[in-house]
Amino acid sequence: MGVLTPPGAAHGPKQDRSRATRQRLLEAAVACLAEVGWAGSTVSVVAERAGVSRGAAQHHFPTREDLFTAAVEYVAEERSQALRELPPQSRPEVVAALVDLYTGPLFRAALQLWVAASNEEQLRPRVTELEARVGRETHRIAVRLLEADESVPGVRETVQGLLDTARGLGLANVLTDDAARRRRVVAQWAALAEHGLG
Amino acid sequence: MGVLTPPGAAHGPKQDRSRATRQRLLEAAVACLAEVGWAGSTVSVVAERAGVSRGAAQHHFPTREDLFTAAVEYVAEERSQALRELPPQSRPEVVAALVDLYTGPLFRAALQLWVAASNEEQLRPRVTELEARVGRETHRIAVRLLEADESVPGVRETVQGLLDTARGLGLANVLTDDAARRRRVVAQWAALAEHGLG
Repeated sequence: MGVLTPPGAAHGPKQDRSRATRQRLLEAAVACLAEVGWAGSTVSVVAERAGVSRGAAQHHFPTREDLFTAAVEYVAEERSQALRELPPQSRPEVVAALVDLYTGPLFRAALQLWVAASNEEQLRPRVTELEARVGRETHRIAVRLLEADESVPGVRETVQGLLDTARGLGLANVLTDDAARRRRVVAQWAALAEHGLG
Repeated sequence: MGVLTPPGAAHGPKQDRSRATRQRLLEAAVACLAEVGWAGSTVSVVAERAGVSRGAAQHHFPTREDLFTAAVEYVAEERSQALRELPPQSRPEVVAALVDLYTGPLFRAALQLWVAASNEEQLRPRVTELEARVGRETHRIAVRLLEADESVPGVRETVQGLLDTARGLGLANVLTDDAARRRRVVAQWAALAEHGLG
């Protein structure tokens, strides 16, 4: 699509197909990262999993780094959207919903990318920037859902600490199913957080 | 050393040399894992870094899995020992010391092993078992340092949640230096934990 293409053309059947292909690639990339890790996740492996030719995959994502950072960003945005659409809930319910963000395939995929980035110079700046952006957005959503007033001293750090705890609980769930212990910890810390949220 | 060697012989100069070699290999393995990750960490790379022949390294650790799980366990045991020897401190100081456990090279190395284990069947059962053991020991030390009475409802979950938060803070520190934000979160959460520790 050239720069002179009228905007309306972006909604034709060809563009719809292109968008669907892109989406299939992004979803396959996240699943691949979560299951086999960064070392085994190549553009070819993802293309095959998505049922897309390698050429088509490279048309959408010229490099491996492009594909996987876009994939984690895409799924993070989907999850943020789901969070934003939650109906009003009690604070313990909100805390449980936030923790759930960190225990599924998105967290597993992001963790693989994160850890790979710590050793790969090509990946590091992109993932650092992505994580900062996703982190700020998650914090904003958490503040709104918890009805937290960050002008009160300690409230901001309480919300940040809740998200740090959620991340730590996510890590504890990577090798074993930690759901039973996690429920008890979340119940207790949701109660303690009340003291910090006012 | 044969099974008939008298116990006293285990302290001869040859055994001292062997023990020193083993220790150099373990320290090199942790540094290697933290810096280049699991994919780049082989027995040969570690042997070279430690200044030990590949044959000698394989005498001590027949497989890659043996070397790296032993290395993470060795450093974890060193850190536990340092924690156990801490003089009596205020609870906020103890919380800060616990969080420090999760922000150095040991955590980086353990994280690499942990994430690799989630995709590698050969590694998974060993790392799962190792993490459970290290986790229980860290919990026991935390209970003692915090003078926490786990017979009181909620106290156990408060201590567990503190360690989950520490793990999440460690993860947040992998790509960027998060020390300034972390100090504020730790101060706030140490204060909230007081409500749960009684």
